[in-house]
Amino acid sequence: MTGADVLLAEIAEQPDVLVRIRADGAIPELARRLASEPPALVRLAAHGSSDNAATYGVYAFGRLAGRTAVRDSISLPVYDGARLARRGELAIALSQSGETPDVVAWLEAMAEAGATTVAITNAPDSPLARAASAVVGLEAGEERSVAATKTYTAELAVLARLAAHTGGSGAELDDALATTIELARRAIAELPDKVGPVAEALAWAERLMVTGRGPEFATAREIALKLTELCRLGGVAMTATDLAHGPIAALDERFPVWVSVGRDSSLEAVREAVDRIAESGAPLVAAGPGAGELRARHAIELPAAPDPLLSPLLSVLPGQLFAAALAAAKRLDAGAPRNLRKVTLAR
Amino acid sequence: MTGADVLLAEIAEQPDVLVRIRADGAIPELARRLASEPPALVRLAAHGSSDNAATYGVYAFGRLAGRTAVRDSISLPVYDGARLARRGELAIALSQSGETPDVVAWLEAMAEAGATTVAITNAPDSPLARAASAVVGLEAGEERSVAATKTYTAELAVLARLAAHTGGSGAELDDALATTIELARRAIAELPDKVGPVAEALAWAERLMVTGRGPEFATAREIALKLTELCRLGGVAMTATDLAHGPIAALDERFPVWVSVGRDSSLEAVREAVDRIAESGAPLVAAGPGAGELRARHAIELPAAPDPLLSPLLSVLPGQLFAAALAAAKRLDAGAPRNLRKVTLAR
Repeated sequence: MTGADVLLAEIAEQPDVLVRIRADGAIPELARRLASEPPALVRLAAHGSSDNAATYGVYAFGRLAGRTAVRDSISLPVYDGARLARRGELAIALSQSGETPDVVAWLEAMAEAGATTVAITNAPDSPLARAASAVVGLEAGEERSVAATKTYTAELAVLARLAAHTGGSGAELDDALATTIELARRAIAELPDKVGPVAEALAWAERLMVTGRGPEFATAREIALKLTELCRLGGVAMTATDLAHGPIAALDERFPVWVSVGRDSSLEAVREAVDRIAESGAPLVAAGPGAGELRARHAIELPAAPDPLLSPLLSVLPGQLFAAALAAAKRLDAGAPRNLRKVTLAR
Repeated sequence: MTGADVLLAEIAEQPDVLVRIRADGAIPELARRLASEPPALVRLAAHGSSDNAATYGVYAFGRLAGRTAVRDSISLPVYDGARLARRGELAIALSQSGETPDVVAWLEAMAEAGATTVAITNAPDSPLARAASAVVGLEAGEERSVAATKTYTAELAVLARLAAHTGGSGAELDDALATTIELARRAIAELPDKVGPVAEALAWAERLMVTGRGPEFATAREIALKLTELCRLGGVAMTATDLAHGPIAALDERFPVWVSVGRDSSLEAVREAVDRIAESGAPLVAAGPGAGELRARHAIELPAAPDPLLSPLLSVLPGQLFAAALAAAKRLDAGAPRNLRKVTLAR
């Protein structure tokens, strides 16, 4: 099995992992505990793909639990000794390996401050899990590929369920999740034929802008990261508004843009952004439900999730598969990037 | 005057703008009001360079005022109608023009929730200023260049003073700021000769990674943005730890890295990251005090700021000047990017 085969196999495993997450009774149980003493603030800490999942967590807790959630600074408590957290807050650390030292140190600092601490990790036996008062497993099996895929979507599903069960809409979300998982299964089967030709057409790309808004900004960040680590290109994530604020000037026919489109309140703003991007001459890929209605050179249609908040479980899939296909088109082995260990112990 | 001349002139104006910010009595006065009712949470909202200044604000309020500050979601209150803010919080909107519609709408939503609202803007007459209960002007004069420079450092200085005067160390910070401004003046005079040869050596770059940690992460984000908008390259900002988590695999001799080095608790972690980056063969530029001690191909020495929290006022300068020089080396007119109005009304 080549590295690329391992990556594609892990991408394909995602629906089964999500089925296990959906069946995990520990999540509603933890949510019940959290709902009884609603936290004033939800702090999330992570690196890499898990940090992109934390971006999603901000929207999940905001929309489903009515709580302010933030991607917390790790530096402030860990390196500067700042004591900002307070009793009654909720601190959630996300890490596939559960071993990244500064994330563990962050969770320990949160516990010391009196926050309720939760570890979301694929390694329920890890230092991070041991530092937490509650652990949610990602049930993803071993992730052999260096580029996280199945643990990323598993983290999204855990955060969505945790927020919804805390906010009282857990049953509805679990129903919508079941439908979304089946849509994901079908999409994973159909997408390779759609993204393959786009990857061939853009094999020359050395830089790529990825844009999305609201929960789709998590998708934009994650696709930009996959493209950077698998395809050795400069993948820049921006919201549509940030793009319009200056970087749109940089776009030209050598600077492709990937737009993650949702079927929500942001659609009109995305349409305006797409029109301006199209004027720049940049090759534009639109992915999502309704992608075909935009002025994009390449449109990758996706089914609409029954709840727009679950849309990131689908919208990341074409990005994962595109990154794998683009790596292949560039003659890179997507599963075996250089210079990298799977578990980073970097501080 | 070409666009590039305008840009360089505005970069050179920064010390004088900072002198005016330092003398602004409205900042300590506002801080006194804030200190009398310490906010439970400081929410910051902005786009583009102002959003990078907000990244700095997280550290300024955390270290100097002992307060949790967060880059707030604009989407949640503005597009989703989420009502998460609470009475007694502090809401700070940053915008050069004071006209970006969704930032104005965000501040209005914060006022409605009972937060104390502050606008930091170069246009004290703008819709944003009118929506705020207190306004701090950037006193930067007209910013003609599309790439923000003097309003960015002015925002940093306002945030540092506001946080320090709220936290009781305003006098010390103002002293340190005076010294830092003179160091900035000297650096702006000396840096062009240092960054010019680096820009010539890297004129081929189509992608570039910028890394820094703690307050220097604001610098990393801002330099990545300047490079993307002025030089049409894929500029990716990462903390050193995020870089080690995966993207380090993407580095090769065609993927340069700019490391912003501080003289603080992060130095050892940065040194480790630099060693791993050097192994990848990526051309490495280190900028900051002590840059010469690292294994970097290009070292740009900077004086150390008397307070490490003021270091971002200095560390962004070589990045601004490098972006201008790299645009020139690429035969682009740095002051006149295509596809762009100065004030974006994009939603």
